[in-house]
Amino acid sequence: MGRITARRRVTRITIGAAALRQEDVLAVEEPLEIRVGGRALVITMRTPGHDFDLAAGFLVSEGVISGRDDFAAARYCAGAEVDGENTFNVLDVTLGFGVAAPDPSLERNFYTTSSCGICGKASIDAVRTLSAFAVAGDTVQIDASLLATFPDRLREGQNVFDKTGGLHAAALFDAATGEMLVLREDVGRHNAVDKVVGWAVTNGLLPLRSTVLMVSGRASFELAQKASMAGIPILAAVSAPSSLAVELAAELGMTVVGFLRGPSMVVYSSDERIISEKVAIS
Amino acid sequence: MGRITARRRVTRITIGAAALRQEDVLAVEEPLEIRVGGRALVITMRTPGHDFDLAAGFLVSEGVISGRDDFAAARYCAGAEVDGENTFNVLDVTLGFGVAAPDPSLERNFYTTSSCGICGKASIDAVRTLSAFAVAGDTVQIDASLLATFPDRLREGQNVFDKTGGLHAAALFDAATGEMLVLREDVGRHNAVDKVVGWAVTNGLLPLRSTVLMVSGRASFELAQKASMAGIPILAAVSAPSSLAVELAAELGMTVVGFLRGPSMVVYSSDERIISEKVAIS
Repeated sequence: MGRITARRRVTRITIGAAALRQEDVLAVEEPLEIRVGGRALVITMRTPGHDFDLAAGFLVSEGVISGRDDFAAARYCAGAEVDGENTFNVLDVTLGFGVAAPDPSLERNFYTTSSCGICGKASIDAVRTLSAFAVAGDTVQIDASLLATFPDRLREGQNVFDKTGGLHAAALFDAATGEMLVLREDVGRHNAVDKVVGWAVTNGLLPLRSTVLMVSGRASFELAQKASMAGIPILAAVSAPSSLAVELAAELGMTVVGFLRGPSMVVYSSDERIISEKVAIS
Repeated sequence: MGRITARRRVTRITIGAAALRQEDVLAVEEPLEIRVGGRALVITMRTPGHDFDLAAGFLVSEGVISGRDDFAAARYCAGAEVDGENTFNVLDVTLGFGVAAPDPSLERNFYTTSSCGICGKASIDAVRTLSAFAVAGDTVQIDASLLATFPDRLREGQNVFDKTGGLHAAALFDAATGEMLVLREDVGRHNAVDKVVGWAVTNGLLPLRSTVLMVSGRASFELAQKASMAGIPILAAVSAPSSLAVELAAELGMTVVGFLRGPSMVVYSSDERIISEKVAIS
């Protein structure tokens, strides 16, 4: 079995025709355990590849690291073996000097504050409190016609999707030049975004001012949170955003664009960053 | 703000035309904290509605409950308030007599066994060990032409998607009659499946023999796990399955159908349950 795609015998059925038994290619999904300083932090189901970036991006999203020096090293654990072979499914991160290790109950803390049991507002407050970067002051603008080219360019870059039809993708674009800086694919869309952000943080690029994060699916609260933690001012999605993703973006001054398809798009927050024809009120 | 959809002013841009400021409808996403016996177990981002079913289905997926009597009661926590109003975002489950409370570190335990660090095989073994129901012996068969009608019927039942374009859906069909038993929508596809399974367990319908679980998106390991824990023999998806979802299904004797669109489909495992024209080998 390959690490990113796997071959399998399948039965292809079309109503009214003879069924076919043939080989097909699937997107690989495998668990990854991320440890920090030897202590297990999280397990995520992901497509193998760019695992160190995934870990780094996850730690940015959770407010543990925010710069290149905060992520000192990562390695696959030698003891994580099946039949004498390393699974490459357990990795251990060494944080930079002085960086506080994450609380093991981090996920719960992230969404809960003492002010209420749990609600959308508390989730938004948690992101605002944790984030090292503000996006509100990022005055970048992008022409709607340039933004409209991003979905096709994302799709063109999806090598594994072409084979399997089974992967989400996330890519980072320079808003000024339209250049695609990095693209990552994964069975989990949150993982694809973590891999993009992890690439950026380990290259010393945070905060990601003047960039657009383009995702292949929907824009959930979690993806908006990840964008904000990396200082990304514009989040664009092929499909719909959720209410809480938009509320978070509106609070933080982040632009959320949804239904970015063909020549059209819907801007849900901070539309001043998207340059288009004069606005009419309907 | 409504509980399932929310209205918001947006800017609709079409290249070459005047932009429009208008109202739009979004799918609501809010955190839900599930407690068991007063102890916090998990927080999930979900679309409000059918929350007790969501909790019950989640507990089935995790191997905590497997029958109606295991889920004695659920209630929204009275203390979970913002501005004096209950958020309806924290609920507490009372388990039936003799049902063991889940381990708070349950998620980690679920994917890890002592046999190796962590890998796909260990994840599959964990499901097999935990599952109260075997699907291998379920000899149900369904005609491919009946199965091919399910995606349109799922789509027709998606009331909230029609308004927002932003929700995943899962539905349970009777494989013998083709009747749709229940349909649930949610911003999270795992939540939509939990709501379906939770509906079933609280109605005393587990194991769900002779049924098809139809999902609007892709079939991940997590969804295959949830289907197997509920004793569902056939998992059908509009899009691609992952490698590990298919490996799990193959181990357990569950049928996985992917790319179920129009007159065609791909069967990844246990194709004897899908009745079609004679098979040719290509």
